[in-house]
Amino acid sequence: MVQKILAGDIRSIARAITLAENEDYQAVELMRSLYSHTGKAYLVGITGPPGGGKSTLVDRMIAYYRKLDLKVAVIGIDPSSTFTGGALLGDRVRMQAHATDSGVFIRSMGSRGHLGGLAVATADSAKILDAAGYDIIIFETVGIGQSEIEVASQVDTTVLVTVPGLGDDIQVLKAGTMEIADIFVVNKADRDGVEKSVMAIEQLLSTWDMTEDDFVPPILKVTAKDNIGIGELAQAIEQHKKYLHDSGKFEVRRRNRAVTEVHTLILNQLDKWAHDKMTKDITTRDNIEEVYLKFIDPHTVAREALRELELETMWDKWGQGADGGG
Amino acid sequence: MVQKILAGDIRSIARAITLAENEDYQAVELMRSLYSHTGKAYLVGITGPPGGGKSTLVDRMIAYYRKLDLKVAVIGIDPSSTFTGGALLGDRVRMQAHATDSGVFIRSMGSRGHLGGLAVATADSAKILDAAGYDIIIFETVGIGQSEIEVASQVDTTVLVTVPGLGDDIQVLKAGTMEIADIFVVNKADRDGVEKSVMAIEQLLSTWDMTEDDFVPPILKVTAKDNIGIGELAQAIEQHKKYLHDSGKFEVRRRNRAVTEVHTLILNQLDKWAHDKMTKDITTRDNIEEVYLKFIDPHTVAREALRELELETMWDKWGQGADGGG
Repeated sequence: MVQKILAGDIRSIARAITLAENEDYQAVELMRSLYSHTGKAYLVGITGPPGGGKSTLVDRMIAYYRKLDLKVAVIGIDPSSTFTGGALLGDRVRMQAHATDSGVFIRSMGSRGHLGGLAVATADSAKILDAAGYDIIIFETVGIGQSEIEVASQVDTTVLVTVPGLGDDIQVLKAGTMEIADIFVVNKADRDGVEKSVMAIEQLLSTWDMTEDDFVPPILKVTAKDNIGIGELAQAIEQHKKYLHDSGKFEVRRRNRAVTEVHTLILNQLDKWAHDKMTKDITTRDNIEEVYLKFIDPHTVAREALRELELETMWDKWGQGADGGG
Repeated sequence: MVQKILAGDIRSIARAITLAENEDYQAVELMRSLYSHTGKAYLVGITGPPGGGKSTLVDRMIAYYRKLDLKVAVIGIDPSSTFTGGALLGDRVRMQAHATDSGVFIRSMGSRGHLGGLAVATADSAKILDAAGYDIIIFETVGIGQSEIEVASQVDTTVLVTVPGLGDDIQVLKAGTMEIADIFVVNKADRDGVEKSVMAIEQLLSTWDMTEDDFVPPILKVTAKDNIGIGELAQAIEQHKKYLHDSGKFEVRRRNRAVTEVHTLILNQLDKWAHDKMTKDITTRDNIEEVYLKFIDPHTVAREALRELELETMWDKWGQGADGGG
């Protein structure tokens, strides 16, 4: 299977991604074998509020990169849904358009069972596609919020897509979301209000605390449906890539990603342990009922549940205070 | 200190909250002593995008409840900031307005060190205030996203505040955020476009999958700055409270909250352990560097790091596959 994936066999890639999504141990063994073959693909995140035309934009980007004979993979991420396997409408449309092209791979992913589960599944999938020889891997996120920030930590360049008329959103998006953008796209630029949107972003950028060495995110006007501005976007991504390499930040980002990935994997397993403990361990279940009944406080129950792991916790100093303790 | 808090001594309450924020073991012992005295306060969440006039609204709600001789506490939550102790501008204004009133307590909280840290700090603070005899505890969230959903799980009634002109936001907010609302407030209702905002929310509500037994969130037009609609909002909160009690959902919510609180406390400590392991344990640090260098894959490193905890993990089946394993 490793050999087939490295040779780019679509059926094996799809199967490996399904194994990774299901946290099958075979996938983990695959990841070990594939990992040294990764690191060549360039990862791009396409994000922004719903209604921004992201799917059309991604569709045109696929076509653009295919003309350069680059292999493109798209991972559609919708944290609010639990579907798997390309069930998104946008994906089905694209699937058809690129169905006969073996240089294009499209897959959707929904939320997974435990904390960080989606991040683990997308990271593993990206590695499978990377090892399989895809040059560009696009993470397209549906929705807005925490997931965008998590995705931004997994990619090399993040493109934030907005449209005219969502001007007020700038204010809404400000807190925590806009900061992740390396490139801004105002899509549907044939609409009224495009200049207003550009100005709103410029104004936002002027409030950022940037030094001379920082990359100034370009603001691109794109009309994806008419294929206008796609080349400029690809060029901006290339410029950002060059900036990351020249400044040494590419290595910093990839190093940070290694930290984040290990952290996410650890937390994912710890959350699974916590969930099992809380649902299957009878003592813990009884204790939680007693928390509800106000017989025990949550700290005591959490402490008891964690006791078997023998961690150092914030509760270790208990017993030093006036009212005793375990 | 327990006696002083139960007697409503403001200085002791403030000190206890600071201890809880700092995860001081004395706070945990306090929580144990106070916990059986909690459960009387009604918890209200005020949430929505920036610019919605939430601070003014909360200010008018305080005045309204004070006239009924109810004690009111406000916890301002800004997950994107790390300040503590009432540093928000809105808080300072309110602090002055209510400075001489011992029946009002206002406190701000920013993000904490580890996963769930803010949720733990706010939950503990609410319990301290509850035990101290505050009748209404308002959680006001600044920003938008995951934190609102976490806060919604901690309160009895969630009020989502929007304003005319943010009409397009409905679409933006839709994914995952609007569903938490028990009551909608269109604030600044003296502005043009108020009916459009109401209609947008009505349209959204019509897409919700509700049964006859569900509470239909009212949509209230409020002009907080002119004190218009505050009584109606208090009434709607009262109606929702009555609905929760009559339907048995109040108990369900409080039981779920016990589960969430224990889960958050456990995860918070596990995340702290993971962070220490990744930063202080030399083997793990070296391993992460090797992940970056592509010598080892992240799964192997996460598995090694977790080994001392002797958890059952998804990696337990390793060694059954073709290419061996630990």
